[in-house]
Amino acid sequence: MCIGEVANVSAEITYTSRHSVEVQVNVMSENILTGAKKVTNKATLWYVPLSLKNVNKVLEVPPIQYARKEQEDEGKKRYEEQKLDRLETKQRNGDVILPVINPDRQTKEPHTVGYSQSSLIHLVGPSDCTLLGFVHGGVTMKLMDEVAGIVAARHCKTNIVTASVDAINFHEKIKKGCVITVSGRMTFTSNKSMEIEVFVDADPFVDEPRERYRAVSAFFTYVSLSKEGKPLPVPQLLTETEDEKRRFEEGKGRYLQTKAKRQAQMQQAAQQ
Amino acid sequence: MCIGEVANVSAEITYTSRHSVEVQVNVMSENILTGAKKVTNKATLWYVPLSLKNVNKVLEVPPIQYARKEQEDEGKKRYEEQKLDRLETKQRNGDVILPVINPDRQTKEPHTVGYSQSSLIHLVGPSDCTLLGFVHGGVTMKLMDEVAGIVAARHCKTNIVTASVDAINFHEKIKKGCVITVSGRMTFTSNKSMEIEVFVDADPFVDEPRERYRAVSAFFTYVSLSKEGKPLPVPQLLTETEDEKRRFEEGKGRYLQTKAKRQAQMQQAAQQ
Amino acid sequence: MCIGEVANVSAEITYTSRHSVEVQVNVMSENILTGAKKVTNKATLWYVPLSLKNVNKVLEVPPIQYARKEQEDEGKKRYEEQKLDRLETKQRNGDVILPVINPDRQTKEPHTVGYSQSSLIHLVGPSDCTLLGFVHGGVTMKLMDEVAGIVAARHCKTNIVTASVDAINFHEKIKKGCVITVSGRMTFTSNKSMEIEVFVDADPFVDEPRERYRAVSAFFTYVSLSKEGKPLPVPQLLTETEDEKRRFEEGKGRYLQTKAKRQAQMQQAAQQ
Repeated sequence: MCIGEVANVSAEITYTSRHSVEVQVNVMSENILTGAKKVTNKATLWYVPLSLKNVNKVLEVPPIQYARKEQEDEGKKRYEEQKLDRLETKQRNGDVILPVINPDRQTKEPHTVGYSQSSLIHLVGPSDCTLLGFVHGGVTMKLMDEVAGIVAARHCKTNIVTASVDAINFHEKIKKGCVITVSGRMTFTSNKSMEIEVFVDADPFVDEPRERYRAVSAFFTYVSLSKEGKPLPVPQLLTETEDEKRRFEEGKGRYLQTKAKRQAQMQQAAQQ
Repeated sequence: MCIGEVANVSAEITYTSRHSVEVQVNVMSENILTGAKKVTNKATLWYVPLSLKNVNKVLEVPPIQYARKEQEDEGKKRYEEQKLDRLETKQRNGDVILPVINPDRQTKEPHTVGYSQSSLIHLVGPSDCTLLGFVHGGVTMKLMDEVAGIVAARHCKTNIVTASVDAINFHEKIKKGCVITVSGRMTFTSNKSMEIEVFVDADPFVDEPRERYRAVSAFFTYVSLSKEGKPLPVPQLLTETEDEKRRFEEGKGRYLQTKAKRQAQMQQAAQQ
Repeated sequence: MCIGEVANVSAEITYTSRHSVEVQVNVMSENILTGAKKVTNKATLWYVPLSLKNVNKVLEVPPIQYARKEQEDEGKKRYEEQKLDRLETKQRNGDVILPVINPDRQTKEPHTVGYSQSSLIHLVGPSDCTLLGFVHGGVTMKLMDEVAGIVAARHCKTNIVTASVDAINFHEKIKKGCVITVSGRMTFTSNKSMEIEVFVDADPFVDEPRERYRAVSAFFTYVSLSKEGKPLPVPQLLTETEDEKRRFEEGKGRYLQTKAKRQAQMQQAAQQ
């Protein structure tokens, strides 16, 4: 999307389980001068309703009516998959990205994980929050994209853009007054893409006597672009430790799975 | 006003009635490098004071002293006119701009009302509000100008600028937590200007069991500019329904009235 | 720092007295494409801890451990100097920069104090504040730099940049709902630099029956740059009144003192 274009954002509820709502969002950009339109972003978001009186109580979702039975079945399938994914990411949550001090980072070899690893801290202020005093999902997502973008740019030293974001998992709410640490590290590179894992950890240091906890995690995929906007080959990630090698293989697994899924969709579309 | 210029904003109370205050605001832009200054905006705002304890109670305004008796008389005349205008707009308030779904809009003919009609929604957050939890007038005005600008640009597919804003009528307060819908449609075109009507409707969906209500309405006038900044002819609005034709005639009335007023002012200035 | 660069901000506690903490902050800019890094800003900030329950009560600071005895001694020396500086600025606080009305300013000669003098007002809203409802230091500093920049640009009518900021003294807290007046005037010019004094005065006009008070004050030093980014000679300040002449001499004193300090540091660095 470029400066001066109009963003047309539309959203629709596509599935409801007992305690969650699936919302599909489409962003179309419109060049006003030429009238040209194109889809620039698509996303599927899952929400859970909380009680206004007791923010720790999850409420029930009124069910929606489906136009066709298949829509409900497909929604249910997406719901089950998403549930499984969340479980998997929960297990990864013990993992920690240690903050790298700047001079330390400079001793690393280019293209290693440690070389591009980055993190930022942010004090959650009133304007980051919803009316109930919890951080807006959009604020967190913006910071995560910022860190992931810095990791990608440090790795390949070119212009980079977000190609896709894997499910962003909001494990826990973040309250006003927390200090959050957003950290990212590269986990995998294919020929033309980079996968970056991003964690958000919250430190409720003023109000509550509670330990730092993992609040959000996600994988971002970036591509490198030439000045003319063409995708460039990406320098391959140098893995050093056992953990880095394991994460690289896991990333490869996700990459191949996504690729297979996309090819299946394209075949399906071609057959219709 | 261009990037890097200094805006000199000055404001002064020019009339007080029992329950309202007239404030005249002048904006001058100053090009720092050349030192050149010019008036870029003028506006007259009417405020009503509310009690800090009971926001539904209107307080009395302490009267100001006028340097000359004529100033008070002219102020009173502006006050009466403004009151009449507000009454008129209140009557128009039953009117609704139906949201246009994107694919639907694409079936419309260029230059019809439906083709350029636009709307956006916005959740009123803490940073949009004053200390008492009501939306800042300036926040609403910015969103209205944004929608009106999109309507104008979609109609004529050129660079456009706001030429003037008719009285913006704040019919009701908007509370923190409301979802507001800002919608605009073109009502009239002259040779070189477009009139766009903008509504702001508020939905207090979380806190209160209250219906959606019309909170603000106004007419914006835009002109179309060439790349060199010269005014361009505007494609004429195609009216289809009876309502659209009626609104076009009403817009023409406002246009002619404003034109006559301006000519009278210029003659008066020439005679002095 | 330029658009697209990554700012690496690091901070560390370098001294603690009984009731205050010295924090040294370093900002390094990193050009992602070339990997080049350079220190762009350095600052020393002093904080005082306040009780969360009673914001007027100053708490005790837990002492830090120093790696070497000299670090503590040097910190103590900086602490004493800073205390002395604060005392001096307190005495200057009776001073007032009268707001200049625009047409009035135009009658002044170029390069006089009155010609470039500037001020702005700002209503302190929720998003300017910390969780306890006091203005963020950073918000105030940004407004002060804005006013100082306008003063500098009006004086020399070129591109200008902040070279350094003398201790910003936060004399008193500013509460949500205050109207603040930020005003600046040029006090001194050397061949290639301008010193601008900036005051922040707070008017707690809604909540409390309290008089306007001086909340913050500081000196900013600006340099004038050519289009190629080279420092330009600065037009000399024309002082008219006795007060202006006295302030010019005081500014010269600060300028010579800073210059001597920097030369001593460079000699020390060269000897090591």
